[in-house]
Amino acid sequence: MHALTVTPGRSGSLAVAEVPDPQPAEHELLVEGLALGVCGTDKEIAAGDYGWAPPGRDRLVLGHESLGRVRHAPDGSDFTEGDLVVGVVRRPDPEPCGACAHGEFDMCRNGRYTERGIKEVDGYGSTLWTVEQDYAVRLDPGLHRTGVLLEPTSVVAKAWDEVWRVGKRAWFEPRRALVTGAGPIGLLAALLGVQRGLDVHVLDRVTDGPKPDLVRRLGATYHAEDTAEVTKKLQPDVVIEATGAGSVVFDAITGTAPYGIVCLTGVSSTGRPLRIDAGTVNRDLVLENSVVLGSVNANLRHYRAAADALAKADPSWLEDLITRRVPLDRATDAFDAREDDVKVVVMLED
Amino acid sequence: MHALTVTPGRSGSLAVAEVPDPQPAEHELLVEGLALGVCGTDKEIAAGDYGWAPPGRDRLVLGHESLGRVRHAPDGSDFTEGDLVVGVVRRPDPEPCGACAHGEFDMCRNGRYTERGIKEVDGYGSTLWTVEQDYAVRLDPGLHRTGVLLEPTSVVAKAWDEVWRVGKRAWFEPRRALVTGAGPIGLLAALLGVQRGLDVHVLDRVTDGPKPDLVRRLGATYHAEDTAEVTKKLQPDVVIEATGAGSVVFDAITGTAPYGIVCLTGVSSTGRPLRIDAGTVNRDLVLENSVVLGSVNANLRHYRAAADALAKADPSWLEDLITRRVPLDRATDAFDAREDDVKVVVMLED
Repeated sequence: MHALTVTPGRSGSLAVAEVPDPQPAEHELLVEGLALGVCGTDKEIAAGDYGWAPPGRDRLVLGHESLGRVRHAPDGSDFTEGDLVVGVVRRPDPEPCGACAHGEFDMCRNGRYTERGIKEVDGYGSTLWTVEQDYAVRLDPGLHRTGVLLEPTSVVAKAWDEVWRVGKRAWFEPRRALVTGAGPIGLLAALLGVQRGLDVHVLDRVTDGPKPDLVRRLGATYHAEDTAEVTKKLQPDVVIEATGAGSVVFDAITGTAPYGIVCLTGVSSTGRPLRIDAGTVNRDLVLENSVVLGSVNANLRHYRAAADALAKADPSWLEDLITRRVPLDRATDAFDAREDDVKVVVMLED
Repeated sequence: MHALTVTPGRSGSLAVAEVPDPQPAEHELLVEGLALGVCGTDKEIAAGDYGWAPPGRDRLVLGHESLGRVRHAPDGSDFTEGDLVVGVVRRPDPEPCGACAHGEFDMCRNGRYTERGIKEVDGYGSTLWTVEQDYAVRLDPGLHRTGVLLEPTSVVAKAWDEVWRVGKRAWFEPRRALVTGAGPIGLLAALLGVQRGLDVHVLDRVTDGPKPDLVRRLGATYHAEDTAEVTKKLQPDVVIEATGAGSVVFDAITGTAPYGIVCLTGVSSTGRPLRIDAGTVNRDLVLENSVVLGSVNANLRHYRAAADALAKADPSWLEDLITRRVPLDRATDAFDAREDDVKVVVMLED
C-alpha cells in the first residue's frame, strides 16, 4: 500500500512510499483510509524538528488527523464493515501514570505516552491502517467528507470542557467568548462556542480570504484589530487562544472580564523575549480571580463530544473549512502553505 | 470608644481617635474587639494609596483582620455572650451580580462589593464593633490569642480550595507543594498544605529570623535559593505564590511538574517591566496542561474551613506567627515594618 512517510529529524525526508499492508491484531479494525488532515505538528515533523520513529526504525508513517471506513471488524465487534471511523492519536504510557490509568492520557504525567504519526507509532497517513477498537470513534455517516476534522475538533472539545470545569469552581454563566486566531483550531473553537450558546468573537490578522466569512456564517463576529483593543471593547468571559503568539497571549490574559478564563491551545515558538509588566499581569489575575489554562491533546470523552459537535454542525460550513484537498501522490504539496489555506487535507482513496 | 481611623487618599492621616460607640441593628452582634491584624492592604490604605471612606464621610475605621468577643447577641441568636468571633470582610454588591447572589461575593463580577475597613464600610479596628450575625464566624475558644489569624487563613483556605477544584477537573493526586514567600499568607498556606498531607516546601529570601524555624516546625522544608533553581529541583505539583514579585511568579509558572497549578495570591506593584520568553511560558502551559489561577478574598465557606484549620493547628506555632503585639494607643507603630516581623497585631482590649 501507499503511505506518507518521514524520517524524523531529517528535513526533506517526507515522501509517498510503498510499504507493507498492515495486519490487524485480533482486537483491531482494518480501515481503508479516506483522508488525512495536515496540521502544524505534521509540518514540524516534516521539517525535521519534531517526531519519533517507532523503536528500531528510522521511518514513521506520518499523520494523526484521520478518517477511514472499516473494511474488517473482529467477530462480535461493535463496529461493522462500512462504518466511518477516526483513530485516536495518543496511547497511555506503559507505566501507566495515574492520569493514563484513569483514561486521561491527554493529561499524562510522565511524558512516556505514544502518539500515532507523531511519537513512536505509525500514523494514519496510508491507504490502509489498523486501529484498536477501543481507540476508534464512529462518526455520523454524513461526515464522510468532513469527518477528518474530528481530531482538531477533539482538541477544542477538550479546551471547552476544561474551561467549563474550571469555570464551575464557582458561579459561572459566561456570555461572551473571544477566539484569537482563525485557523482550523480557532474556527472549530468558535463553532463549539456558538453551540454552547455563547456570543462568540474571532480575531485574526487577515481582512480577506475565507476566514471572515466562515466566522460570520457561524453567527459569530469577526475582528481584525489589535488584541488589546478588542479585549478592551469586548471584556470576554472566556478566551480560547489559538495563535501561540506571545503578545496575543498576554493581551488576552490582561483583557478578560473578572473571573475570566483564558485557555491556551497554541504551541508557540520559543526564544522571542517579550517585555511585559509582570506586576500588572499578576495583579490582574489575582484581583479578578482569573485563570490561564493550558490545554493540549484529547481523550476519548473529548473525541465523542467532538463527534457530536460535528454531527450537529452545518455540513457546508465544515466542507468550506477544508480549503484544499490534495491526492496522496502529491501529498507533499499539502505541506506548502498557500494564501487562503485553512485546513488542507490529503485524500487517501484511490 | 477608641478606633484606628484613616482618611483614605491622605497619607499620614492614620490615628487613634475617639468615635461614637456603634449601635447594633436588630440582626447584629455587639462585639468587644480583642485584636486586629495589620496587613499590606492596611499599609496601602495608611499610605493614602487605597481605600474608600463610607459614603458622605472622609474618615474610615481601618482594619479587616478581626477578633472579638460577643458582648450582646439578639434574642434567639445562634451566638451567645462570650463567644469568640471574627467578622467577614466583604459584603455582596447591591445588584447583586450572579456570584454575589450565590454567596460567592469573593468572586464578585461588577466590583461594587463593599469591604469592612477597606471599601465604604467601617472596619474592625475599634474597641467595640458590630457585625451582622450572618457575617460572623465563631471560633474555638482556644483561639482567644490567635484567632486574629482567621482572615488571612480564609484567604489561603480559598486558595487551596480553588487549587483542588481546578485540579479535580481530571485525575489529581498532588504530592509536593511549593509556597513562595514566608510572610503570614505563605506560612498559613504552608500550614494548610501540610494539613492536606502534602510534602510542603517554602521559599523566601531570608536565612535568619523566625521564618526558617516556623517552616521547619510545620514539618515543611525551607529554601532560601533562587526560585528557578528550587522549582527545577522540586518540580512541584502545586505552587502557592505569595510574594507578588514578577520574576518569582514567572519562575513558578515555568517550574511546575506537568499538570501543575500555580495559585497567585500576592498583589504586586505594577510598572516594573520584566523581559520574559512569552513563547516558552505559553508552550509550557499548553504542553503540560498547566494552570495559573488568581485568587483573592474569601467567602463564608472559606472562613469556616479556616476556622477548622486553625482549631487543628499547633497553638504555640500560631502564637509564634504573631511576632509583635502593639497596644491600641500605639497602633501606628504596627505600621512601621521591623526586621523579623511576620504578623503584627494591634491589641484592642483595655
